[in-house]
Amino acid sequence: MTRSFFTCACAVTLTAVLGQSRNTDLLRFVDPMIGTQRMGHVYPGATAPFGMVQLSPDTDTIPYAVNGTYNPEVYRTCSGYQYDDSTIVGFSHTHFSGTGHSDLGDILLMPTTGPLLMNPGTAAHPESGFRSVFHHAGEKAVPGKYEVLLEDHGIKAELTATTRVGMHRYTFPRTETAHVILDLVHGIYNHADKNVWTFVRVENDTLVTGYRQTNGWARTRTVYFAMAFSKPIARYGQQPDARPQEYRGFWRKFDQNHDFPEMAGKQLRAWFDFDVKAGEQLQVKVALSSVSTEGALRNMAAELPHWDFDRVVRETQDAWRAELGRIRIESKRPEVLTNFYTAMYHACLAPTVYQDVDGQYRGLDQNIHTATGFTNYTTFSLWDTYRALHPLFNIIQRERSSDFVNSMLAHYDQSAHHMLPIWSHHANENWCMIGYHAVSVIADAHAKGVEGFDAKHALDACAATARHRGFEGLGEYMDLGYVPEDCSGSSVSKTLEYSYDDRCIYRMALSMRNEDIVTEFLIRSENFKWIFPPQGRFALPRLANGEFITEFDPLDTHQKGFIEGNAWNYSLYVPHKPDAIALMLGGPKGFREHLDSLFTMELPDKYFEHTEDITRDGIMGNYVHGNEPSHHVAYLYNYTDRPWMTGKRVRDVLDIMYKPRPDGLSGNDDCGQMSAWYIFSALGFYPMEPGSDAYELGAPVVDRAEIPLPDGRTFKVIVKGQGPKNGYVQHVELNGARLDRTTITHYELMAGGVLEFTLGPNPPNF
Amino acid sequence: MTRSFFTCACAVTLTAVLGQSRNTDLLRFVDPMIGTQRMGHVYPGATAPFGMVQLSPDTDTIPYAVNGTYNPEVYRTCSGYQYDDSTIVGFSHTHFSGTGHSDLGDILLMPTTGPLLMNPGTAAHPESGFRSVFHHAGEKAVPGKYEVLLEDHGIKAELTATTRVGMHRYTFPRTETAHVILDLVHGIYNHADKNVWTFVRVENDTLVTGYRQTNGWARTRTVYFAMAFSKPIARYGQQPDARPQEYRGFWRKFDQNHDFPEMAGKQLRAWFDFDVKAGEQLQVKVALSSVSTEGALRNMAAELPHWDFDRVVRETQDAWRAELGRIRIESKRPEVLTNFYTAMYHACLAPTVYQDVDGQYRGLDQNIHTATGFTNYTTFSLWDTYRALHPLFNIIQRERSSDFVNSMLAHYDQSAHHMLPIWSHHANENWCMIGYHAVSVIADAHAKGVEGFDAKHALDACAATARHRGFEGLGEYMDLGYVPEDCSGSSVSKTLEYSYDDRCIYRMALSMRNEDIVTEFLIRSENFKWIFPPQGRFALPRLANGEFITEFDPLDTHQKGFIEGNAWNYSLYVPHKPDAIALMLGGPKGFREHLDSLFTMELPDKYFEHTEDITRDGIMGNYVHGNEPSHHVAYLYNYTDRPWMTGKRVRDVLDIMYKPRPDGLSGNDDCGQMSAWYIFSALGFYPMEPGSDAYELGAPVVDRAEIPLPDGRTFKVIVKGQGPKNGYVQHVELNGARLDRTTITHYELMAGGVLEFTLGPNPPNF
Repeated sequence: MTRSFFTCACAVTLTAVLGQSRNTDLLRFVDPMIGTQRMGHVYPGATAPFGMVQLSPDTDTIPYAVNGTYNPEVYRTCSGYQYDDSTIVGFSHTHFSGTGHSDLGDILLMPTTGPLLMNPGTAAHPESGFRSVFHHAGEKAVPGKYEVLLEDHGIKAELTATTRVGMHRYTFPRTETAHVILDLVHGIYNHADKNVWTFVRVENDTLVTGYRQTNGWARTRTVYFAMAFSKPIARYGQQPDARPQEYRGFWRKFDQNHDFPEMAGKQLRAWFDFDVKAGEQLQVKVALSSVSTEGALRNMAAELPHWDFDRVVRETQDAWRAELGRIRIESKRPEVLTNFYTAMYHACLAPTVYQDVDGQYRGLDQNIHTATGFTNYTTFSLWDTYRALHPLFNIIQRERSSDFVNSMLAHYDQSAHHMLPIWSHHANENWCMIGYHAVSVIADAHAKGVEGFDAKHALDACAATARHRGFEGLGEYMDLGYVPEDCSGSSVSKTLEYSYDDRCIYRMALSMRNEDIVTEFLIRSENFKWIFPPQGRFALPRLANGEFITEFDPLDTHQKGFIEGNAWNYSLYVPHKPDAIALMLGGPKGFREHLDSLFTMELPDKYFEHTEDITRDGIMGNYVHGNEPSHHVAYLYNYTDRPWMTGKRVRDVLDIMYKPRPDGLSGNDDCGQMSAWYIFSALGFYPMEPGSDAYELGAPVVDRAEIPLPDGRTFKVIVKGQGPKNGYVQHVELNGARLDRTTITHYELMAGGVLEFTLGPNPPNF
Repeated sequence: MTRSFFTCACAVTLTAVLGQSRNTDLLRFVDPMIGTQRMGHVYPGATAPFGMVQLSPDTDTIPYAVNGTYNPEVYRTCSGYQYDDSTIVGFSHTHFSGTGHSDLGDILLMPTTGPLLMNPGTAAHPESGFRSVFHHAGEKAVPGKYEVLLEDHGIKAELTATTRVGMHRYTFPRTETAHVILDLVHGIYNHADKNVWTFVRVENDTLVTGYRQTNGWARTRTVYFAMAFSKPIARYGQQPDARPQEYRGFWRKFDQNHDFPEMAGKQLRAWFDFDVKAGEQLQVKVALSSVSTEGALRNMAAELPHWDFDRVVRETQDAWRAELGRIRIESKRPEVLTNFYTAMYHACLAPTVYQDVDGQYRGLDQNIHTATGFTNYTTFSLWDTYRALHPLFNIIQRERSSDFVNSMLAHYDQSAHHMLPIWSHHANENWCMIGYHAVSVIADAHAKGVEGFDAKHALDACAATARHRGFEGLGEYMDLGYVPEDCSGSSVSKTLEYSYDDRCIYRMALSMRNEDIVTEFLIRSENFKWIFPPQGRFALPRLANGEFITEFDPLDTHQKGFIEGNAWNYSLYVPHKPDAIALMLGGPKGFREHLDSLFTMELPDKYFEHTEDITRDGIMGNYVHGNEPSHHVAYLYNYTDRPWMTGKRVRDVLDIMYKPRPDGLSGNDDCGQMSAWYIFSALGFYPMEPGSDAYELGAPVVDRAEIPLPDGRTFKVIVKGQGPKNGYVQHVELNGARLDRTTITHYELMAGGVLEFTLGPNPPNF
């Protein structure tokens, strides 16, 4: 099979029906526990698709810093939950899915019995605090519902959620001391100064409101809540604040620790006591808002006015069924079904809704804005998700894609820097990682015909962002063609990623006939060339005086010039010019041999130890799947003399690096990027260059797949010869016509039709 | 002259005209420097009447606590300014007028030249920081404008303000280093943890926005601002934050200290540099909002869209002329004119507007509300101001009185305690001092026919507040008839004040025919009797078991049972039953002798040293004018056998305790209460029992006075025989008919007419 671009495919209609799988409840293929152990960093709790509330158990309270020094242990609980932990400190309402740095964990509730203990205690001595021992045998997680037995208290806790409201159902044993702790001190990646302010009002005997304001990864963030109980509070109070407090005299007039309805301070914990019978269920609804407690109350009134817990589970699970059903697959291998639909589940956890039911939300400027004509979202882990997650959305979540672009444009409009988001969450820019990949997300949406946003404004925003001279060496990049390492670190990674991002802007400008931008960014998109020394195999960091830094170790991720990827992996990061890279590395054959080396070399342990965010399973040779810069690398084989190696490598990665078990994710899921890679690759194609309309072909692991499309069309993937030993694509047909290229286009996909792979145990007769 | 109640007065029209004084510019009688030295605690800066912005120089940065211990020195600068200080640290935009505890001092600006210094330095070494030496010769304060020469920097600074916007005009010398420091660390009554969060955005090269959030006397408070410069910022930056900061790594990507447009942290100071020529004027407009920076921007756009400093001065001074002109007096004594109109000025500084131009404001529940049908105000120093200031408003500021009641009702509606304000400011209840005197303010407004609020809702709010069992011994008071000292301190003061407040509720309920409340609160209003032991001269603290605490010193303010007044003064605090007190103290003659003792006794120094908030001038014998509980005491002579002594004592107090000089206020002006006492008393009458419609007659110090009334009516005060030696009222005529009583009613006043006092050098022929 020779590869060639620009070949038209005939449209052929396939009439085959996927049969039984249509009627299967896809929910049963989702296991939210996958990825909760070790590196996956996902959370097992209850959430609606893209929900604002992520109500999930937190298994420890690891401080971000000990004696002022970063505590690496905190990394274990980026999602609040680690499968190996033995205790639960409570259930908080906000969580990231799969991140490698963290924040959130807001508004923790913990039901307890026995003596009122107002501190979480320690994992070694859970009896010293309100936390409880739990075992996985007493735990059950399904989309939209989580339950666990809190053994120390004899309480069964069940959780569910609508988009903006978390709902708890606690079944108490016989007890005369039934407490619910509201812990506003608790948080993920908490440090001593993280809480800026906390505020609680007991509005009446069943309603409590308040907020938690933090200075964390989001520098200036406030989460408002409204909490309703299904039965009256019998007594309540707050933990006495041990901190010396100025002006306290004026507050001594009341007993502030008991039944005092307005609490405020930096470290608030409150308790609420209830009179319950044995087996009685206490229910709690907690609505969130970024706007105000009134906003939270409106969200509760609109989304969850009733007390029917099971109905919420049912409706949220129906919402999940709809999202999961956007791709239907068949496989004889249960692990493929579980991996695939769990990936689909994880791919629908971020970005998250970030507005109240009336459209109001807190913007980056900390003012209250109203989203008009779109739904506002937050949690844009863009360095990760531009690669495959957003392209996936541009197929199966096109309305949300438009919302995402509009949300990023709102961020741009509110930005004092006049920049699109880099890594943004909860009305904040946290500036995490490099590049300005919002431009990729926008260009990809534009290239793929997503509508509903102002393309001209979007292109302006992309160009303005890419021209911000003060940002991470961009000024020098614009002047010299590369980021000099002596001006801004990780300069190789940055130069490569800027160069790719610039290609996205060029493509978008080209399609919009904006000549100025086209010229400027076409030139910039070639900048990757400046950091490859003549005859070199690796991109090298370069100084402002033009010299290359040649003394360096291409296996070391912590090498000057690089971040989250060593020179071996990063030097392949020119997704928009794979042929150029192939040429630099000796043409199709030399390039292939280079890739083979990558996948098969022996990486000494010392290098792995320095590699963040991944398990040993996340590495294949020196190919690092657990971090994103390599996600397109297997597809580069399409630009070698043995393109079928793409499918071979991809299938190996799919099978080795994704397992249907708690430790089954080999690296951080990164807000769905790792999962989106699985979804695409399992289907047999991948968006190597987001911003273009091409998908590189690989080799599917599904038996069949069906993607419902607008206007009743369907895109189908059919696989002949699927089997564990048949790792090589023999040939591919699109609508019955054999393809003589290794790509299909987005428009071919969206037109509907059938993509048929034929697999075999050996490379095809090339 | 025998005294008798319930005598009708004939309405007579006086045709005399006040002549020249109508055309006098009253502004020239106001000296904002009066009361800035020692105990007055007023500020000399620029503000509009009842303005949200109080733009004034702060002369020191005294910490609230040193090593965790309250620093009594801080008390000197409750208003930010002490006349005796030698340096100015800058100009901040919020100040209390005359309080005895403090807060505010938000958003300090300081123009400087020379090396950029980012700390205020010390008074002893002003050159070590950005502060500057100043002298009163280089200073000028008039209503609506303040100016000062900042000698260390050679900068003339001029300040003015609209209701919501402060305006600065800085005239620079020849310099290549013209800085403006924006100090968000600075505040009044600042302690190390007071700043909760600060936030600054440089929106463009002439506009900066941000906020300061504090935990001070107001526990949870945020002031938003928008600041516009009249010329582009050349360079800007922030003071590097020395505090270890978690997550800082993510921000290191930028140089955050220079030209980084989004600053946030707990202790922010920013600098803005300008290129100026010698003599060039840089102007700055700073708008405030309790809602958001957008709210501040809207306030600026609506109130001060232009750059004409002199026009702002002109318009704000016109607003002041209108307020001052609500009472026109004549006097041959310049000091009376100055004292009177300075008192009028000070009486229009609080409460302050607390809403944006669109009616939005932050409520007590921290949510954003919109004032509909009224203007929302804050800064209710009610323990002070219910006595004379609000009654004064019920004559000359009746529309604002309605707004004040509606503002207090909004507070009630938003209160988690379901209580009216005690001492509230900036969306917070600070619980300062005792009683629930909002009910007095409401009842007085109701009794005096102020309209525009829901009287039924107001009465409900009054009763609910008075029934809050958890508040300061109220539960026990309701059960036992008095506050037991062993349950809640200052129990005598509380019992007496609750009893008076209950009379207010009774009166209001009576007029509204609410029989349940009438009965309950009539009984409660007699509760003062329970703390007077049989045959005792002083009210005594009592225990829950019924016993009196008899071992105590009636001269000691810090005696158990009392607050801000000793037993001598406080035992006279039954303003609603002066005849009952007179009877207890031996009838008219015995009562008079008791009062004479009070005014003439020798108070040993040791007692004065323990008396807060007043200068030595604030005491006459053991009569303590510098604190409020005695403010009605001189008028009690009307209930003795020598009622003319009222006038005699009042005139002595007016002349001795109010002087037209910086140290001329003998105690804290207390948001205008001390000034309102002067205004009433100078006119010859006083509201001894707010909530009733009666004014007790005293003896005027004005020669004539005229109060313009609605519908073209006028109430006039004419004095025959005015002169320093004529301290005794001979007789009083109302509209030509001689009064055989010592009171007039509000309705007589509001009907217009003439009140004519005839004074003489000796007591009248009685």
